Amino acid sequence: MNCEVIAVGTELLLGQIVDTNSSYIGEQLALAGIDSHFQTKVGDNAARMKSSVELALSRSDAVILCGGLGPTQDDITRNVIADVMGVELETRQDLVDKISAMFSQRGRQMPQNNLLQAQIPVGGEPIPVQPGTAPGLCCPIGDKVIYAVPGVPWEMTKMIDEFVLPDLRERAGITSVIASRVLRTWGASESGLAETLADEIVRLDETGEATIAFLASGIEGLKVRITAKAASQAEVDAKLAAEEAQVRSIIGDDLIFGIDDDTMETVVVDLCRQQGLKLGAAESLTGGLIGQRITAHPGVSDVFQGSIVSYADSVKAQVLDTGDAAAISDEGAKAMAIGAAKALGADCTVAVTGVAGPAPAGGYKPGTVFMATYVDGVAETLMVEWPFDRKRTREFTTITVLNQLRKRLMARSV
Amino acid sequence: MNCEVIAVGTELLLGQIVDTNSSYIGEQLALAGIDSHFQTKVGDNAARMKSSVELALSRSDAVILCGGLGPTQDDITRNVIADVMGVELETRQDLVDKISAMFSQRGRQMPQNNLLQAQIPVGGEPIPVQPGTAPGLCCPIGDKVIYAVPGVPWEMTKMIDEFVLPDLRERAGITSVIASRVLRTWGASESGLAETLADEIVRLDETGEATIAFLASGIEGLKVRITAKAASQAEVDAKLAAEEAQVRSIIGDDLIFGIDDDTMETVVVDLCRQQGLKLGAAESLTGGLIGQRITAHPGVSDVFQGSIVSYADSVKAQVLDTGDAAAISDEGAKAMAIGAAKALGADCTVAVTGVAGPAPAGGYKPGTVFMATYVDGVAETLMVEWPFDRKRTREFTTITVLNQLRKRLMARSV
Repeated sequence: MNCEVIAVGTELLLGQIVDTNSSYIGEQLALAGIDSHFQTKVGDNAARMKSSVELALSRSDAVILCGGLGPTQDDITRNVIADVMGVELETRQDLVDKISAMFSQRGRQMPQNNLLQAQIPVGGEPIPVQPGTAPGLCCPIGDKVIYAVPGVPWEMTKMIDEFVLPDLRERAGITSVIASRVLRTWGASESGLAETLADEIVRLDETGEATIAFLASGIEGLKVRITAKAASQAEVDAKLAAEEAQVRSIIGDDLIFGIDDDTMETVVVDLCRQQGLKLGAAESLTGGLIGQRITAHPGVSDVFQGSIVSYADSVKAQVLDTGDAAAISDEGAKAMAIGAAKALGADCTVAVTGVAGPAPAGGYKPGTVFMATYVDGVAETLMVEWPFDRKRTREFTTITVLNQLRKRLMARSV
Repeated sequence: MNCEVIAVGTELLLGQIVDTNSSYIGEQLALAGIDSHFQTKVGDNAARMKSSVELALSRSDAVILCGGLGPTQDDITRNVIADVMGVELETRQDLVDKISAMFSQRGRQMPQNNLLQAQIPVGGEPIPVQPGTAPGLCCPIGDKVIYAVPGVPWEMTKMIDEFVLPDLRERAGITSVIASRVLRTWGASESGLAETLADEIVRLDETGEATIAFLASGIEGLKVRITAKAASQAEVDAKLAAEEAQVRSIIGDDLIFGIDDDTMETVVVDLCRQQGLKLGAAESLTGGLIGQRITAHPGVSDVFQGSIVSYADSVKAQVLDTGDAAAISDEGAKAMAIGAAKALGADCTVAVTGVAGPAPAGGYKPGTVFMATYVDGVAETLMVEWPFDRKRTREFTTITVLNQLRKRLMARSV
C-alpha cells in the first residue's frame, strides 16, 4: 500500500505559506507502515488539480488531498474529486444540520457560502471526525481511495490521526500495531551516537525487532526514535520497553534527558518541583531565551522565579552583584548564577555569558560561552566554543546549561 | 514561461525535514515574473526521480531540482539528469581543481567521494555561482532547461538568486525589472487593511501600476507587499516609491513600523539609539521573549540594558519594587515598567503581565494582558484581551507593547 499527498493552494506555490501539512502526513504514514513516494503542491486550479489527482491514482493506491475544503469560490477540492470520479456533488442534509449547529453554538448564523461544505461527491462519504466546519471526504474510486482533509493544521491532524490512518491500515490489511518512543538526548553528536549504536542497529536489521532513527533537532536536542511493530499494543509496548532498555544500556542514561514530549525545560522544572527547589536564571548571551523556553510551558510558576537578563555590564554589577568578575569569564558566569539566586530568591540557577557573534568581544571569538549552574550553595562552570552562528550559539547554550543543572539535580536525588 | 520545482530527498517525504526550499524558490519565481504550477517532493530513488523530471518537462518550460548533489551514494540527481538527457556523465577537471582547492583552504584533504561532485552530464554546464563544494547544474534539453541546486539552504538561495533567476528571465525574454517593497505594519487586521485598501487595489488592477499582497506573519506583524514591474531599476524604484506613498497616505503612517527587513525590535532599538535612550524591559507573561527578540539582533548592547523576568510575585516586589500593585493589573504593569527603569538603569522600558493561559488566573480569563511603556518619567498602559492560545498571546503581546513604545518615541522625536 502506498499513498501520495497533494497539498492544494496557490499560496503554497507562491511560498507565502510553507507546506508543513505534507511533512506531518508523510511522517504519520511512515509510522503507520504505509509508503509515500510522491508529494505534490498544486494551486487552486481545477484542471491542474485534476491532472495531479489522476496521476497520483495511476501510480499509488491512495491519495490524500489537503486543503481547498473551505467555503469560498477558491475551494474546489470537492468539485475536482467529483470530476475525477465522474459523479455529481450532492448536498447532504446531515452535514447542513451539523455545520449550521456549529455556527449557532457560537451564536452566529451560518453564511450561505458554508452550504458548499455540505456537498459530497456521490459515492463518497464525509469523514466522521469533523473538528471544524469543513467535513473531510473519503471517496472510493475502483479499488483505490481519495481522502480530502482541510488545510487548517489542527483540523487536518485530527482527521489524519483518527480516521485516515486507521482506514488506510484497514484497507492495506495491516493489523499489526506500529508505535515508537523517542529518547530525547543531549551531549553526543548524531554521528557519535550512530557509531555507539552501530552494532545494535545491525542486530536490529537482522532480527527486525525494532528500528532506530536519529533526528538532530537543535534546541530540542538529538532525538533517537525507536519504532517497533507487533500484533497487539501490549506486545509493541513490551518491544519498545525492551529496546529502550537496550539502548539505554548502550549509550548510558546520562545522555537521555527524557522521552517523547519531554523537553529539557520541563524535565528540569519537574526535578526542581520534586526536590522542592525554586529555579532562576541569569542571562547575558541568551538575552531571555532561557526564561522564554521555561515559561513557554504552562504551570511552571510554582517553581520558576524568573530570570535576570543582564545584557549591560552595569546590570550584572548592580542587580546580580557580580563585583569584580569580568563580564565574559568563568568567574563572571559563576557570579551571575550566585547573584541570580539571591536576587530572585531561587534555590538553584543557571547563568550564561559569552560572545553570540558575529563579532568577537572581550578578547574572545564568537561562539565562546561561559555557563554556570548553582545549587546547594555551590556554583559549577562550563566553557564551550561553539562553531555556530548567533542563533544556534544561543540555542545550544540554552539546552546545554539546563542539561548541566539537570545532571546536578539527578545526582542530588540519588 | 513556467518552471516547476522538484525537491529531492527521502527525508522530505518522511517529514523529518520540512521543505522550505521549494517555498523560497516559489516565492522568488513569482517575484521574477515566472509561473510555477507544480512543486513535487520525491525520494532518493532513480526511477521515481526520472519520472518526476520527465513529467515536469512535459508540462513546463523549466525544472529546478533541489537536493541530491552531495558526495554520497544517495546523491543521484546528476545521474538522473544525465539519464533524462540520454547522455553520460563526464568528470570536469576544472571542478576537481575547484573542489579540492576548497578543501585545502580549510586545511583538509578532499575525500575521494567528493570527486563525484565534479561530474556533469555531457551538454550541461556547472552553475558558475558555487558557494559550497557542490556545483549546481544548468542542463539544456531541447528548448527547455533543467537546473539542479544543492539542498543546503544558503547554497541554494545564492545559486537561485544569482544565476537561476537571471538565466530563466533571459530565456523567457523578460527584460523588465520586477521588485517589491514590504511595508511592515501592526495594529490593523488583514481584512481591515484589505478593506481600507480595496479601492486602491481595484485601481491597481485597472492600471497595472503595481500589485498589493497581504501576509499575516505573527510576531513579525502584518506585511503589505507592493510589487511593481518596469523597464529599468530606476523606473521600478520610482513606481515602488510612488505606490508606497499612496499606500501610506491611505492607511496612515501610524500603522507602518518599518519596511523590508526592519523588525519591531530593530526599529525600537534604532529610535532609542537616535534619541540617546537606554532601553529595558520587565516581563511576566512573556517570560523573556521580549529580551530574546531584541537580543536576537547583533549590536544592540549600546542601547539594551536588559530585562527583569519577574515570573514570581516576590521578584516583582523585590527586584522591581512594585509595592502594593496587584501582580495582574494596570497598576502592576505600570509599577513593573517604572521598577525596570530603575533596576536596569534604563531611560525607557516596556512591561507586560497577564494570563497566558490555558488556565485563568487572578480572576482574569486567559489572554488578558496588561502592558505598560515608560519614557520621560511617564508610564502609560494598555489592556488587551487576546482570543489566542498561549504561544500567540505571548507573541502578539511582545510586538504590541514594543509598538506602543515605538509610537511614543516617534511622537517624542517630532
